[in-house]
Amino acid sequence: MHILILGGAGMIGSKLTQRLIADGGLTGKAIDKLTLVDWVDPTPPGVPFAVETKAADLANPGVAGEVVAGRPDVIFHLAAIVSGEAEADFEKGYRVNLDGTRLLFEAIRKIGGGYRPRVIFTSSIAVFGAPFPEAIGDEFFHTPLTSYGTQKAIDELLLADYTRRGFMDGIGIRLPTICVRPGKPNKAASGFFSGIIREPLAGQEAILPVDESVRHWHASPRSAVGFLVHAAGLEGERLGNRRNLSMPGVSATIGEQIAALRKVAGDAVANRIRRQPDPTIVSIVDGWPRNFDPKRAIGLGFKAESSFEEIIRVHIADELGGTWVK
Amino acid sequence: MHILILGGAGMIGSKLTQRLIADGGLTGKAIDKLTLVDWVDPTPPGVPFAVETKAADLANPGVAGEVVAGRPDVIFHLAAIVSGEAEADFEKGYRVNLDGTRLLFEAIRKIGGGYRPRVIFTSSIAVFGAPFPEAIGDEFFHTPLTSYGTQKAIDELLLADYTRRGFMDGIGIRLPTICVRPGKPNKAASGFFSGIIREPLAGQEAILPVDESVRHWHASPRSAVGFLVHAAGLEGERLGNRRNLSMPGVSATIGEQIAALRKVAGDAVANRIRRQPDPTIVSIVDGWPRNFDPKRAIGLGFKAESSFEEIIRVHIADELGGTWVK
Repeated sequence: MHILILGGAGMIGSKLTQRLIADGGLTGKAIDKLTLVDWVDPTPPGVPFAVETKAADLANPGVAGEVVAGRPDVIFHLAAIVSGEAEADFEKGYRVNLDGTRLLFEAIRKIGGGYRPRVIFTSSIAVFGAPFPEAIGDEFFHTPLTSYGTQKAIDELLLADYTRRGFMDGIGIRLPTICVRPGKPNKAASGFFSGIIREPLAGQEAILPVDESVRHWHASPRSAVGFLVHAAGLEGERLGNRRNLSMPGVSATIGEQIAALRKVAGDAVANRIRRQPDPTIVSIVDGWPRNFDPKRAIGLGFKAESSFEEIIRVHIADELGGTWVK
Repeated sequence: MHILILGGAGMIGSKLTQRLIADGGLTGKAIDKLTLVDWVDPTPPGVPFAVETKAADLANPGVAGEVVAGRPDVIFHLAAIVSGEAEADFEKGYRVNLDGTRLLFEAIRKIGGGYRPRVIFTSSIAVFGAPFPEAIGDEFFHTPLTSYGTQKAIDELLLADYTRRGFMDGIGIRLPTICVRPGKPNKAASGFFSGIIREPLAGQEAILPVDESVRHWHASPRSAVGFLVHAAGLEGERLGNRRNLSMPGVSATIGEQIAALRKVAGDAVANRIRRQPDPTIVSIVDGWPRNFDPKRAIGLGFKAESSFEEIIRVHIADELGGTWVK
């Protein structure tokens, strides 16, 4: 089995690569070859199967055709400009998040001859825009309030149509806001959700730019990788023509998140969070989903954490070797 | 006031032109100039203000920039490949229905300097795909089952984002299946809905390719033009960030439609309909909406007919000079 990961150098791409190496296979089949593509050359991991890495920009002419020419069996398309950057740079966001994805789907279509790979696309809950019902159901409409959310919603529509036409076998998964992201903050407006857990556990101060009453929807990086691996093995027929799914997650207020941090790691850690409201971030976050009722994904076997405390414990186990700065 | 109609040679474009000529103005302002653009040179009507006509393909490089260079105040974007053709020719459908629209919006954005025209875009109920609730509400999600519906749904997302970013002031209106279309059948799979009324009234046989139990959602060409004119005058603030609306209409089964024809025009006319099931059309129509609950549009003052009988009477009045072949 040949697997292609687009966005292989990103946080989720790297973790997916580690998981595939640990598992040695996917959907019950051994992996023969793994191709990692990103804007920068993805770090080649030490692996028991052939790995090819490539720095490439999908939105450049001809690039998408090159990356799928090896006819990978499974394609994980994780490559994207994050929300803050897509809002700041209108043209770049559309170029990468819309044109890059469309060119990928077109390249797959043009191979033809019965080639019909499983394509797993990471969409986002940013396809939804306020006002919301208290919990967003599987049939709620898409009125994104960011260009990023617009681009992801368009990609979902393309994925469904290319799948319906038989050009590929796509599944779009709307990731909750991933928390706790390891490493440095990225340009996503949602970065503080990870920051207020990650930095205090590392002995550093974290800035909280919104009110503690803000409620949001989360899953861990481990769960995100689990969604991707689970999607790879799903029978397409079970999805019918509705190929895009909101993933399960944990709905928690910032106040609940800080209380969970306090319970897991103690007062000294929780007290490293400094309140400093940022009106720009407050207004962006105001339009974000608070809670979901993802019946379809749960029925199809997707699993996330069951509490925010569990999300923190996953971070401590997976990133901090089981300990933190007290 | 300068008005631009894209798709000016089409059925709705021609009727909109006639209406603007009759009214002499739009949104309470006199029309100074009307520009009509289509694939073919739109027939120049005899009008009391300047009219410019142009054959142009929006999806060709540079064309969109040329057609908006005159900075029209109101742009009616009606140009599209119909559903049957977009399904038969995948590339042409995406080129015209997606790329053409996106290039138009881009051309508007690139003018800049405070230019922010009202753009009225004709979307379609094909953005929805079965299974449906009994009546589709304003917050039901978009899972189109045709490439045409996919393209329209993408255009809606672009319209909303370009509006939110301040590049234009867009309103998307999802037209019901327009009935009774005058003239010859087009390539739309929905063509028979008009055919079973139009042909019998003209003394000709009509083919009914689906069962009489099929229920669908309709409005007259007169109502469609009314929606467009009403949308031109709406205050954008009343729509907030949700810029795309399902229009009001009449939900009726084919059986009810034939009964209305019989009531209005008599047995001899109704008996000119011949049942000849077409499995392809049956399966396409199976995925179509049956009924809507368009509360927002009604609240914003959009109006359609209140019965299918009224739709037939509008056709007889507007197209047949008040009479028909008995």
